Amino acid sequence: MPAPAYLTQHRNRFLEELIDWLRIPSVSADPKFHGDVLKAADYLKDKLAEAGATNVEICPTAGNPIVYGDYMAGPDRPTVLVYGHYDVQPADPYELWTSPPFEPVIKDEKIYARGACDDKGQVYMHVKALEMMLRAGGGAPCNIKFMFEGEEEIGSNNLGIFVKANKEKLQADVILISDTGILANDVPSIEVGLRGLSYHEVEVTGPNRDLHSGLYGGAVMNPINALCDMISSLHDANRHITIPGFYDKVDELSADERAEMAQAPFSETEFKQSIGLPAAVGEAGYTTPERTSIRPTLDVNGIWGGYTGEGAKTVIASKAYAKISMRLVPHQTSDEITALFQKHFESIAPAGITVKVTPHHGGEPVVTPTNSAAYRAAAKALETTFGKKPVPTRGGGSIPIVAMFKSELGLDSVLLGFGLDSDAIHSPNEHFGVFNFLKGIETIPEFYKEYAAATR
Amino acid sequence: MPAPAYLTQHRNRFLEELIDWLRIPSVSADPKFHGDVLKAADYLKDKLAEAGATNVEICPTAGNPIVYGDYMAGPDRPTVLVYGHYDVQPADPYELWTSPPFEPVIKDEKIYARGACDDKGQVYMHVKALEMMLRAGGGAPCNIKFMFEGEEEIGSNNLGIFVKANKEKLQADVILISDTGILANDVPSIEVGLRGLSYHEVEVTGPNRDLHSGLYGGAVMNPINALCDMISSLHDANRHITIPGFYDKVDELSADERAEMAQAPFSETEFKQSIGLPAAVGEAGYTTPERTSIRPTLDVNGIWGGYTGEGAKTVIASKAYAKISMRLVPHQTSDEITALFQKHFESIAPAGITVKVTPHHGGEPVVTPTNSAAYRAAAKALETTFGKKPVPTRGGGSIPIVAMFKSELGLDSVLLGFGLDSDAIHSPNEHFGVFNFLKGIETIPEFYKEYAAATR
Repeated sequence: MPAPAYLTQHRNRFLEELIDWLRIPSVSADPKFHGDVLKAADYLKDKLAEAGATNVEICPTAGNPIVYGDYMAGPDRPTVLVYGHYDVQPADPYELWTSPPFEPVIKDEKIYARGACDDKGQVYMHVKALEMMLRAGGGAPCNIKFMFEGEEEIGSNNLGIFVKANKEKLQADVILISDTGILANDVPSIEVGLRGLSYHEVEVTGPNRDLHSGLYGGAVMNPINALCDMISSLHDANRHITIPGFYDKVDELSADERAEMAQAPFSETEFKQSIGLPAAVGEAGYTTPERTSIRPTLDVNGIWGGYTGEGAKTVIASKAYAKISMRLVPHQTSDEITALFQKHFESIAPAGITVKVTPHHGGEPVVTPTNSAAYRAAAKALETTFGKKPVPTRGGGSIPIVAMFKSELGLDSVLLGFGLDSDAIHSPNEHFGVFNFLKGIETIPEFYKEYAAATR
Repeated sequence: MPAPAYLTQHRNRFLEELIDWLRIPSVSADPKFHGDVLKAADYLKDKLAEAGATNVEICPTAGNPIVYGDYMAGPDRPTVLVYGHYDVQPADPYELWTSPPFEPVIKDEKIYARGACDDKGQVYMHVKALEMMLRAGGGAPCNIKFMFEGEEEIGSNNLGIFVKANKEKLQADVILISDTGILANDVPSIEVGLRGLSYHEVEVTGPNRDLHSGLYGGAVMNPINALCDMISSLHDANRHITIPGFYDKVDELSADERAEMAQAPFSETEFKQSIGLPAAVGEAGYTTPERTSIRPTLDVNGIWGGYTGEGAKTVIASKAYAKISMRLVPHQTSDEITALFQKHFESIAPAGITVKVTPHHGGEPVVTPTNSAAYRAAAKALETTFGKKPVPTRGGGSIPIVAMFKSELGLDSVLLGFGLDSDAIHSPNEHFGVFNFLKGIETIPEFYKEYAAATR
């Protein structure tokens, strides 16, 4: 089915507007970008209003503001709360980008920029879908409330407070989120499960100052060596995680469920080729798709200590650091795993080493229903625009707010995302296909049409 | 015994001159300080000439220049070749210095600055000892040749070439080096053994780009986790090093030799207190002094990879890095251990991880004789100025050029150093006691007197 004429006609402007927005480095993790975060929120607010949203406002929080706007189709229509985020991950290491992260370019029909896919590009699909419905489609068939936050990449700490305080304003029938992906451009899919997160910064301390390795080497526990020992001990030879109690609450899938999962198209060869690896390595007894979806994992996301400059320095550092995170599956909870990790990591410090564990934000694993009107509407919308029924998938990432929406607002979410695994989100050279951006704008109105029809 | 009157009288000027020199950040490991390295060489040349040295010159090399000067007492006198270095270690992490590393201050009778002890402070003792002998002592009783290099902290790569090309110019009877320490200000000692060094930078590579840990975590070998596993496996539970063949050539001391070593004054309690540790940890079966002198060791001197900025980033890095060094004992050789390490470290890479090992400079372990005229002269000089016979010690650090002087010039070295283990060389807040600086200036002329007398 061809894209609507309006989309074809305004395609270039839509891309230019997104690119202008991507130029603003709205990195929430680094205080030096705070002004840009606010600028990005303002830009979004203006564009929402231009698209035809009403009640558009910047809602202050204790942290970065939330951009709100709505469109009211009528009291008899169902209400959809659209969630997304306008903040982005830090872009470093900058030197690995082939073009600067905040100077977006389109190459090979892909938009290269930090945030191109995660999540500014996907948020902007919603803004342009609204414009298209209002200017060329005679209006939208649902009430729509837009809520875009600026702290998703740092834990959404203020979103929960905002939601609790604005339950009436945010009243809706379902949440719609575009912050995930499809399996391939010819294999539409909908994520129905997401892993949770427990993220920690650890600091190990040995001697009270840096020491000369010639004078002290061999007689003191080197904090970097100790940290390596401790990290290494977190997995056994089968790549099982060794933290006591870690697997106690893991939802073990039945043989039937695993067999059903195995039906989803997946090529181990392509997986390995796409990331340049001769071997996929993971927990014994599970396939690659299982390892990245239904199994919890532990990864070191960063490590540093001692001399890291040019040349050689024969030092025993006083301290060493790492960022360590775990992906969680139903029915693990972020708080429980955080407590287990802290206790265990402190307990494995060798003599002469003290440990400080600082938890960062966490997030709960979720499974979204596949038997709801909203899920079925999303599936039909994708089938209309892709010409193919979508596959339900259980993804590996975390969208912690999905669990929060369920508990605070009592609402399920539909994860109608258009990214690809290969989009390099959180990495250098993040990009978003022009095809995917336009397909999102085309699909979103179909969702509203199907959802309004199903609930009439 | 009181210090000579000249020293008392000129004490403050000597300190001021040293402080002016310490202001010049002659960091050889970092190209951005190259101009300062040259400035420090010029300063030293000028001060040598002012002190009365002849034939003072800056000798170019392929790297940093060597500063040469001499004093000829007469053809019937023995000749001493004084070696030292004017380059210093990098000063980072700057934030851990209580005063900036290149803005020297005297606090509690200690000079705080990078290079205060290692080795500019100790080199400057020789310059001022010459001045004192020539202006207040009626000349020096030995021929003295000064050779100060600017690449000791980066492996002395050009010194060997210079020595080979200038054997006649450098002809001498013994080498005198002040780049070591004494046990305490009331326990004079002379180092008679030094460990060698094998230093490597390792790079491990997993996937061809940084990956999102939510999408890929659990299915690929994380390079940081792999690096931790590999480093952890380099020691066993007894803190023995597991590299095959590593201990094959280690000179094992006899029970008698170990008993003699154990006579040297050492307090385990003070050792632990001085570095703020509840436990001294090292190779099973050896004491702390043995672990830092007669046993080889392996330490990680630096590690880095992934996201190390503020906040959380859920990334699986493509690469991780470490600097790993080994201290060697007689009769290990740097080349052999370097080859064993490279081969072993490459062999332990898990599936999906490639490894690159880049050796930095190495150095050979040495033992210097205690039955020579020069050693006895140094012992007498210390006894005169400290009022106490010095203890022979086997140190933990490396002065790689000692072995090179032996092989190229056929000369033994005497290690007449005045630092303390607590001087924090190679660390933030490096310092050198004013007592030690002055005691060095006082002791050096005594050495020449005793050495000239012994060889007459």
